Amino acid sequence: MAEIKFDIEETFGEISESAKGWKKELNLISWNGRPAKFDLREWDPNHQKMGKGITLSKEELKALKVLLNNMEL
Amino acid sequence: MAEIKFDIEETFGEISESAKGWKKELNLISWNGRPAKFDLREWDPNHQKMGKGITLSKEELKALKVLLNNMEL
Repeated sequence: MAEIKFDIEETFGEISESAKGWKKELNLISWNGRPAKFDLREWDPNHQKMGKGITLSKEELKALKVLLNNMEL
Repeated sequence: MAEIKFDIEETFGEISESAKGWKKELNLISWNGRPAKFDLREWDPNHQKMGKGITLSKEELKALKVLLNNMEL
């Protein structure tokens, strides 16, 4: 299996934590040495195993912020 | 390959569109007949093919909103 290299350059916060300690976090991550992207993803407590997630550009994060602020949550 | 059934119950908006017309969207989606969850994911123009994404609870969306509003974007 190919190895994925990643470097968590910045952590902005977590939005939830599961009973087993996995957290959904928003980070700035460089994948395989490429320029870092924003990344919303689930991680184990040690940041060694990752779950499903999505990478986002700064523009996408801005659009998401506008969208969330227009929703009734 | 197992089939995934999904029903897009509500669409809240898109945060980007690629050159090929794929859009990153925030939707409320029921997966395999289960109760609907918020879902941030990339879709083809016809909502037939999906890309990577993440499902979110209402509480997680609320937390994400707070987090984004505290960031300098």
